[in-house]
Amino acid sequence: MNSKALQIGLAGLGTVGTGVYETLCRNNDLLQARTGIPYAVKRVAVRDIHRKRDVEIDPALLTDNWRELVEDPEIDIVIELIGGTDEAHELVKAALNAHKPVVTGNKALLAEYGGELFRLSAETSTPLYFEASCGGGIPIIQSLQNSLVCNHVRRITGIINGTSNYILSSMERKGISYREALDAAQRKGYAEADPTLDVNGWDAAHKALILAMLAYGTPLSPESIAVYGIERVTPVDFHFARELGYNIKLLMVIRHHEESDALELRVQPSFVSRHHMLSNVYGVFNAIAVHGDIVGETIFYGRGAGKNPTASAVLGDVMLAMRERRHPEYHSGFHPYTKQLSLMPLEDTVTPYYVRFQVSDTPGIIATIATELAKFDIGISATMSRGHEDVEETCDLVFLLHACPWGRLCRALAELGERPGIAPHPAVFRIETLNEEA
Amino acid sequence: MNSKALQIGLAGLGTVGTGVYETLCRNNDLLQARTGIPYAVKRVAVRDIHRKRDVEIDPALLTDNWRELVEDPEIDIVIELIGGTDEAHELVKAALNAHKPVVTGNKALLAEYGGELFRLSAETSTPLYFEASCGGGIPIIQSLQNSLVCNHVRRITGIINGTSNYILSSMERKGISYREALDAAQRKGYAEADPTLDVNGWDAAHKALILAMLAYGTPLSPESIAVYGIERVTPVDFHFARELGYNIKLLMVIRHHEESDALELRVQPSFVSRHHMLSNVYGVFNAIAVHGDIVGETIFYGRGAGKNPTASAVLGDVMLAMRERRHPEYHSGFHPYTKQLSLMPLEDTVTPYYVRFQVSDTPGIIATIATELAKFDIGISATMSRGHEDVEETCDLVFLLHACPWGRLCRALAELGERPGIAPHPAVFRIETLNEEA
Repeated sequence: MNSKALQIGLAGLGTVGTGVYETLCRNNDLLQARTGIPYAVKRVAVRDIHRKRDVEIDPALLTDNWRELVEDPEIDIVIELIGGTDEAHELVKAALNAHKPVVTGNKALLAEYGGELFRLSAETSTPLYFEASCGGGIPIIQSLQNSLVCNHVRRITGIINGTSNYILSSMERKGISYREALDAAQRKGYAEADPTLDVNGWDAAHKALILAMLAYGTPLSPESIAVYGIERVTPVDFHFARELGYNIKLLMVIRHHEESDALELRVQPSFVSRHHMLSNVYGVFNAIAVHGDIVGETIFYGRGAGKNPTASAVLGDVMLAMRERRHPEYHSGFHPYTKQLSLMPLEDTVTPYYVRFQVSDTPGIIATIATELAKFDIGISATMSRGHEDVEETCDLVFLLHACPWGRLCRALAELGERPGIAPHPAVFRIETLNEEA
Repeated sequence: MNSKALQIGLAGLGTVGTGVYETLCRNNDLLQARTGIPYAVKRVAVRDIHRKRDVEIDPALLTDNWRELVEDPEIDIVIELIGGTDEAHELVKAALNAHKPVVTGNKALLAEYGGELFRLSAETSTPLYFEASCGGGIPIIQSLQNSLVCNHVRRITGIINGTSNYILSSMERKGISYREALDAAQRKGYAEADPTLDVNGWDAAHKALILAMLAYGTPLSPESIAVYGIERVTPVDFHFARELGYNIKLLMVIRHHEESDALELRVQPSFVSRHHMLSNVYGVFNAIAVHGDIVGETIFYGRGAGKNPTASAVLGDVMLAMRERRHPEYHSGFHPYTKQLSLMPLEDTVTPYYVRFQVSDTPGIIATIATELAKFDIGISATMSRGHEDVEETCDLVFLLHACPWGRLCRALAELGERPGIAPHPAVFRIETLNEEA
C-alpha cells in the first residue's frame, strides 16, 4: 500500500476549522492506528493571515488565497469550512472540477446549490462529502448513505437546530418568554448576535432540504419547503402543552406519501407527545428520527453544532475520503432516482392541531368557534381555557382539533378572525404523533 | 466501470436470511439506483433443501453444502447467517482465506472468535463486516468505524437485548412479576422457548464484547466481561425505582478509565434516571449511547432484532462490501491499537447503588445496617421502606448508597447477610448517572 502521506487542504480556520485542525493534531496517533493512512495538512486558507488565533499553527501553512488549495497538484482532499454561498460555491466547484474530493459542512451552500453540486460531483466522478452540514456530530448522512441504503425512507422528522431548541427548552423549564429566553441564550453563547436563521426556522429548513435530497435522490431548493419559526411561541402554550401531555419542539418533517408519490417538506413548531423520545431532547442537542421500510424506526441523537462535534463529523468524512480517493466510483455519493417526486403543498399536509385563541371572556364564543369549524368539517377533540394573565376579561381558549389539511384549517381560522370577541391570528401548533406507522 | 453483476453467496435462510433475500428482491430497483452496482444472489446454502419455506425462491439456487459458496470462484461476497459457533466459524475462516469478503450477523461467533477472525481478516486483506451482529438495524458498527473514527471512545452504554428490555418494560408498565412477564413475552413471540441467553445477560454481553473490541482495537473474550441478568428483578424494585425517579434497564457498560488505562466491561440491571433518554427505551427497541472525546454524547436508537431490521443492517454491509471489494485495504475494518488496555475487575468498578433488603419489621435494623456500611466507608444518600406485600412482619428496606467500588459493597452486604433480622442476598442495582462527563 502506498504509504505516501495524503495531503489535506483546509479552507477556513473559524470555529469548526480550528476544531478540525486541533483534532487532526491531537488525535493523530489514534487516526493513524485506526486508518493506517498517513496524512498531513499541507495548506490552510484563511481570510486574514495576520489575525491573531487561539490555535497554534505554523504561519507557513497559511494562505489568504483558497485557489492555492485547488491548484496545488499535491493536495489530495479539500475541506471547505469557509461558509457562505459565494466563495464557498466557487471553491467547491473548482475543487470538484480539479478532481479533488471535497468535505464540506456548509448547509446553506448545499440547500441553495446542492442539486448543481451533486450533479457536478457525479459528472467529475469526484466525491462530495457533507456529514457536517446536517446534525453536527450525529452520523446521519453516512447512515442514510450506507447502513440504511436498502430502505425506502418513509419519514424523517427531527429537531435539527440547537439554538431554537435551547430557547424552547428554557421557555419550557423556566416559564419565561421567548424574548427572555433568546436574550439568555445570546448571553450564554447559544444564540448568535443575529439569530434570525435559527429562530425563523431556516437553518433547520436548509438541513431538511439536504436530508430530503439524499433520501429521495431528487434535487430540491429553498422554494420546496414551508418554514415557520419559533418567534410566536409563548409561555401560555407551554402551560397548555404540559397540561395536555405534550412538549413543544421546532420540528422538521419530511414525509413521503406513497399513494400520491408526493413529498411533504416543512419546518413548524409542533406539539410532541411526552412519551416520544423527541420530546426529551433538550438544550443544544439534536435528534433525527428516520423511518425506513425495512429497518423500521431509528433515532439518532447528539450535539447538532459546536466546534468539536462538527469537527468530528468533518473528520469522519475526511478519513472516508482518504480511503476512497483512488476509487471515487465506490463513493455512495448521491445517486438521483429516476422517480419524479412531486412536492406536496403545505395546504394539503394533514395533522391534528392545537389552536389557542385569545377571546373576550363572554358566553357564546365556544359555540361560535365550534359552529364555524363544523362548517369546515374540522373535528374537535378537546377544549380548555384559562383567564388571560395580562388582559382583563380575556381568555386563552384552546381547541385540540382532529387531523385535517392545513389549508382548510387556515381558511377556517381566517373566517373566525373576523368575528367579534375573537382576536385574529391564533397560535397554531401541529401535533406530531410520530408513531411507528410513520 | 465494470458492469458485470456481483455474485452473492448467502449462507442461511432462517429468519434474517429470508429478510435479506426478500429485500434484495423487493428493493432491487432502489438498491440499483442508489449504488449503481448490479448484483445477483448466485447460491443459497441451507441445512435442508427440501424444507418447505415461506419465501419464494428458485430451488435451483439452493445447496446444502456451504463450501460451494467458498469454492465457487464466481461468488464475490459471502453472507453468513447460519448462526452458531461451529460451522459458521469454519465458513467465515474459509471465506476469508479464499479472499471473499464476509458479511455476518453472528454475535456469538464474534464474541468467541472475534480476535482470531479480525486478525485473519487483516492477514488476508479481506474485510469482515458485522453490523448485524450488534443492535439489529441500528448503524452502530459503521458509525463507530467511520463517522466517529476521530474519537477516543470514553464510554458506551446501552440497552442491547430486546427480549430482556421487553420483559422489564412489561414489568414496569403492568406491575407484573418477572415470571409472568417472561411467559407473556414468549406467548407473543418476543422471547424464545429457551430465553436463557436473553435473560441471563449473555446476549447483551456478546454484543458488548464486539463493541468494545471495535472501540478499543483490542481482542477480548467472554472471560473479559462481568454479566448479570434480569431474573431476580421484582415488581417491588420497580415500585421503588418509580418513587425515586428511576427506571430499571439491563445496561451494558463499557467505560475507559484514562488514568489507569483500564477498561470497565459489564452487563448489569441498573437504575437509570427518568430524565435520561435510555430510560424511555421500551419493548424490543435498543439504544446505544456513545461518548467520544470530540463528538461528545451520541445516542443511536432503533429495533435491535427482528427479520427486517437485521436484514437492513446486513444489506448496508453488503452494499459497502460490493463497493469496497476491489480495494479491501480501504475497508476500515479492525485495526488493533498498539495500546495495551487492562481489564478493570468488576470489584473495582464504581457507581452509586440501590440496595433492597428484606428485613424483619423491628426497630434497630436501620441502625445495624447504617453502622455496618459506615465500617466499610459506604455513604448513604437515602432510605425508604415499605411493608412486605406477602410476608407478615417483614419489610422491604431500601438504601440508596453513594458511589463506592462493587467489591467493597459486596463485602459489606456479605457481613450484613449474617445478621439476625436481615435476609441474605439483597437486591442490588447499580445507579447509572450517564451524564455528559461520561
